[in-house]
Amino acid sequence: MSVHPTQVRLVEVGARDGLQNEKAIIPAEAKIELIDRLSATGLRTIEATSFVSPKWVPQLADAAEVYAGIDKREGVAYPVLVPNIKGYERAREVGVTEIAVFGAASEAFSMKNINASIEQSIDRFSEVIAAARADGVKVRGYVSTVLGCPYQGEVPLADVVRVARALHELGCYEVSLGDTIGVGTPAKARDMLRAVAAEIPMEALAVHFHDTYGQALANILACLEEGVAVVDASVSGTGGCPYAKGASGNVASEDVVYMLHGMGIDTGIDLDRLVDTGRWLSQLLGRDTGSKVTRARAA
Amino acid sequence: MSVHPTQVRLVEVGARDGLQNEKAIIPAEAKIELIDRLSATGLRTIEATSFVSPKWVPQLADAAEVYAGIDKREGVAYPVLVPNIKGYERAREVGVTEIAVFGAASEAFSMKNINASIEQSIDRFSEVIAAARADGVKVRGYVSTVLGCPYQGEVPLADVVRVARALHELGCYEVSLGDTIGVGTPAKARDMLRAVAAEIPMEALAVHFHDTYGQALANILACLEEGVAVVDASVSGTGGCPYAKGASGNVASEDVVYMLHGMGIDTGIDLDRLVDTGRWLSQLLGRDTGSKVTRARAA
Repeated sequence: MSVHPTQVRLVEVGARDGLQNEKAIIPAEAKIELIDRLSATGLRTIEATSFVSPKWVPQLADAAEVYAGIDKREGVAYPVLVPNIKGYERAREVGVTEIAVFGAASEAFSMKNINASIEQSIDRFSEVIAAARADGVKVRGYVSTVLGCPYQGEVPLADVVRVARALHELGCYEVSLGDTIGVGTPAKARDMLRAVAAEIPMEALAVHFHDTYGQALANILACLEEGVAVVDASVSGTGGCPYAKGASGNVASEDVVYMLHGMGIDTGIDLDRLVDTGRWLSQLLGRDTGSKVTRARAA
Repeated sequence: MSVHPTQVRLVEVGARDGLQNEKAIIPAEAKIELIDRLSATGLRTIEATSFVSPKWVPQLADAAEVYAGIDKREGVAYPVLVPNIKGYERAREVGVTEIAVFGAASEAFSMKNINASIEQSIDRFSEVIAAARADGVKVRGYVSTVLGCPYQGEVPLADVVRVARALHELGCYEVSLGDTIGVGTPAKARDMLRAVAAEIPMEALAVHFHDTYGQALANILACLEEGVAVVDASVSGTGGCPYAKGASGNVASEDVVYMLHGMGIDTGIDLDRLVDTGRWLSQLLGRDTGSKVTRARAA
């Protein structure tokens, strides 16, 4: 019953997935400081930014400056999100060594989000992945809307498996399965993970839960029990849910680490430092922390 | 791996455990309306109030009036908390048919909270339970601080088991195991439940988690997988953590029900009505809901 990995790698997405929804532009120096503070906590994978068009996401127009400015620690990966070949070329110019590509399991979401069908999006990231592999750049893949879609509602498991398999076969070393709108519950999360793990080795899978409905930690627990050992999270729970204004999005890294350490699972992360970093970021953003652990400790 | 009960009974504690920490006195009519709204959601156990001394908890000085005023639905139990024989007598005067008694697993907590050692507290509630049994009144037992204590820190599992067994042997039909300060994580919750269930039938156990560190749903999930089928929760997450100001206390009933229904577990509760009741209560208390489900739906 209580089988779970003894080590878990956290993928910190706050600097990209978290900040990209912020309206007020955050200076590049602050983003760099955030990432450097995060790497000092013991995190080994920190998504740094996105080389998306500045027209789409003005907040991340400073991607090149941020990436160039971070103190790249030995043993820490700093993947950057790349939406297309143009973004990939911009990323390569500053020496990026790991990228992430993004696909949706929901046809409706894919059309609304990137104006491309799932098939077209696979073509698009297959070009990016091929270029990256030729350059010896590692690629991480995201599949979004794995447990529900804001536009089409239910998402067939077969579509999740198909997109995850495509990313894996194209050469992603890891595929992160994302419940973009946070509607999933543990049994569904487990079933989804099982279906994907039937086709892709568990070692190549990660989970990405949003806490919009408060279910993230329970879903993570269910997936740990299935054997997943990589979990995405965002310091201070940064990154609201763009599909439900005022609702929470990413699960807070602090709360995930608290749970993992409480279960005797090693993450290599110093929770005190992570809490401090989350506090610093909350102050920078001028809002309350999204981490209950941090709130409890402040009390 | 995914074994869990197909039916779960929720014990709604908002009207007592939730409201008892409110500073501003809530009129008895509002408390009665809350309880009547809750019973209309399909809840079958609703803790109504506490016959504690009004000197200790002025908020619940209207216990008799509230209990007398609620519309007692067929098939719904309305236990009231009773700290001692005096409280029991007051409760009996208004025809209470089910009570709850409260013990701590932590010696330090017992001394600070009720100024009695664990042994003394067992003597105290043994008198109450004996009187109740003689009257044909059902008794539910609480064990607090089962996963940690604000004063002594660690709480030995043996103490949790000892107090739970005492309550069960004295005649409590159900013993609710409470993580009063919300510090527990799933593996510890599971180990604690297992240790108690080795001595008391699982059918006579309930779990009571606080969400202070964001762990409540994950802990509930771990305990469901062990077979527990009764879960305490508080509508709108009412009831802050008195040991960590500003931090959250009780897990929100709405979020628990969302998880259970999402897992295909029957509760008999209408989630929409429960969400509405939580909204009504939040407005009454003039604060944001503690339920993420409600926040996501409002968005």
